[in-house]
Amino acid sequence: MVVKDSFPTLVEDGDALLILDQTRLPREAVMLRLTSLEDVARSISVMQVRGAPLIGATAAYGVAMGLADDASDGRLQHVIEMLAVTRPTAVNLHWALERMNRVLQESALTTRREMAWNEARKIATEDRAANAAIGRHGLVLLQATWQGQQPVNVMTHCNAGRLATVEHGTALAPVYAAHAAGLPVHVWVSETRPRNQGLLTAWELREAGVPHTLLADNAAGLLLMRGKVDLVIVGADRIAANGDTANKVGTYLKALAARAHGVPFYVAAPLSTIDFACPSGGAIPIEERAADELGAGDTPVANPAFDVTPAALISGIVSERGIAQAGELGQWKP
Amino acid sequence: MVVKDSFPTLVEDGDALLILDQTRLPREAVMLRLTSLEDVARSISVMQVRGAPLIGATAAYGVAMGLADDASDGRLQHVIEMLAVTRPTAVNLHWALERMNRVLQESALTTRREMAWNEARKIATEDRAANAAIGRHGLVLLQATWQGQQPVNVMTHCNAGRLATVEHGTALAPVYAAHAAGLPVHVWVSETRPRNQGLLTAWELREAGVPHTLLADNAAGLLLMRGKVDLVIVGADRIAANGDTANKVGTYLKALAARAHGVPFYVAAPLSTIDFACPSGGAIPIEERAADELGAGDTPVANPAFDVTPAALISGIVSERGIAQAGELGQWKP
Repeated sequence: MVVKDSFPTLVEDGDALLILDQTRLPREAVMLRLTSLEDVARSISVMQVRGAPLIGATAAYGVAMGLADDASDGRLQHVIEMLAVTRPTAVNLHWALERMNRVLQESALTTRREMAWNEARKIATEDRAANAAIGRHGLVLLQATWQGQQPVNVMTHCNAGRLATVEHGTALAPVYAAHAAGLPVHVWVSETRPRNQGLLTAWELREAGVPHTLLADNAAGLLLMRGKVDLVIVGADRIAANGDTANKVGTYLKALAARAHGVPFYVAAPLSTIDFACPSGGAIPIEERAADELGAGDTPVANPAFDVTPAALISGIVSERGIAQAGELGQWKP
Repeated sequence: MVVKDSFPTLVEDGDALLILDQTRLPREAVMLRLTSLEDVARSISVMQVRGAPLIGATAAYGVAMGLADDASDGRLQHVIEMLAVTRPTAVNLHWALERMNRVLQESALTTRREMAWNEARKIATEDRAANAAIGRHGLVLLQATWQGQQPVNVMTHCNAGRLATVEHGTALAPVYAAHAAGLPVHVWVSETRPRNQGLLTAWELREAGVPHTLLADNAAGLLLMRGKVDLVIVGADRIAANGDTANKVGTYLKALAARAHGVPFYVAAPLSTIDFACPSGGAIPIEERAADELGAGDTPVANPAFDVTPAALISGIVSERGIAQAGELGQWKP
């Protein structure tokens, strides 16, 4: 899968981490150097780094950086707790921190720092591979949809592209796979208020040369009603064991509209996004973000960052293992 | 119905018209003086004046102003054609222009200019009265919903408040009637991208002292899922004879979510918004507005300004005549 990748989302740089500052996109593409645990924690909470899979990998590196001067058990717990509170909804964060904790608990103090860097690197490498596999599995859906003339019209929400991952993206991985395979594809990109991550999606699709059109989130229903959408694919921040899926707020409205017009609605996410300990969507914590994201002065504001799409509205979940019914995720339980 | 009304939406000023410039709200409340037909046409197309009922009344005054130097039949047709093309979806515009045309065709040339001002004044006065009646009829719905403790939670979309009308509003008329009657009411205000007319709604609710909370359009589904909404009330730009309703883009998504959670979804509009010549929603022209409203540089953009909510999703239509099932509007046919 060839994706133009002049600005990677995350690169090791000695004892530091270079990240693409996503709060400055699409205005400017700037790599930011994170040199401490505090830098990493802040980059996640202010969303310089964002997207569930990328948050997980970045936090893993944050653990390694937090052990620079002290790799003791006490320090390790402090580091993990500090990173765990940066964002509440994306389960990949907790998945990565638990994995780091498990591996590092078992390692000798003298090698713990090196082990931490190694494990973070493994998480990043596995994310690349998982997303490439999601691309291959999802490509089959797009190929099956193609009528042979018009491009396949995919609608997405927020950014679940390469910017949300270490590489390739989740929801956009099948799009990039289609583009690489010569299958004509066009993406409807929702603005994604209040933080406008749709502009990130438009930016990376343009970089990759994939045709796309931006729309206000409000326009999704009309486009579906008019038959302009063949397939909806979104990412996920946490998938409950029963298939209920938390993703960027507004996803649920698209799922309802897709169902109303018989358009398939898929969720694409690596297994690290599935929270088998969480029975259903009602148990997923929904982050409430600051009022100023709506830029409406002192008007009272409600600003939930995610919503929950019930499994019944989801046509299938695409992971690195293949495509499953949302109600049959048990087959992927580790 | 007492509504604080320090800045009216529309006031006669000799041979001119003062309008509240809605493109500068909520930053500043400025009355703009329109002195010519061209001023009036521009104020409608750039949305300094907006809201289906207010567009109708303003256009009627525009006809009167267009006849200042020449009240001939030819001039009358030119004036009406010029105003008719300013916005395509709101049917109140065409309703007002047809009414002006009919009345003025029948009047002698010597009195035509005076007749035009009189008829515009009548349209404005009738709009006030119709909206006050909508408030009274809609109040009954809110009273029936009230459980006696928590305020009634009304969700709306866009601005169908007093700013969208000559006075009182349509969707917000019942809210103002409830507030005046001492019934506790709280309004969920959708931002309404891309033009953010939700900020107009927040501004006028604050002026009137009605509790309200702003949200991103995307958050509507989660709020409905969480049981935070008792009733959705929106305005309309055109209601087809079968009850299908064109309103600000995004309305349809709210209607789908309201239905999914068993929350009543009402449309409030004067009879002048019902287009009995239009059989169903598919025949309503949907305005496509400029790409730059999304502020995304040279990214390709789709920007439909309205969508269509099927009659089947509408619990009832509230007009000055009362409340009707969306499928039974024939009873109101003139």
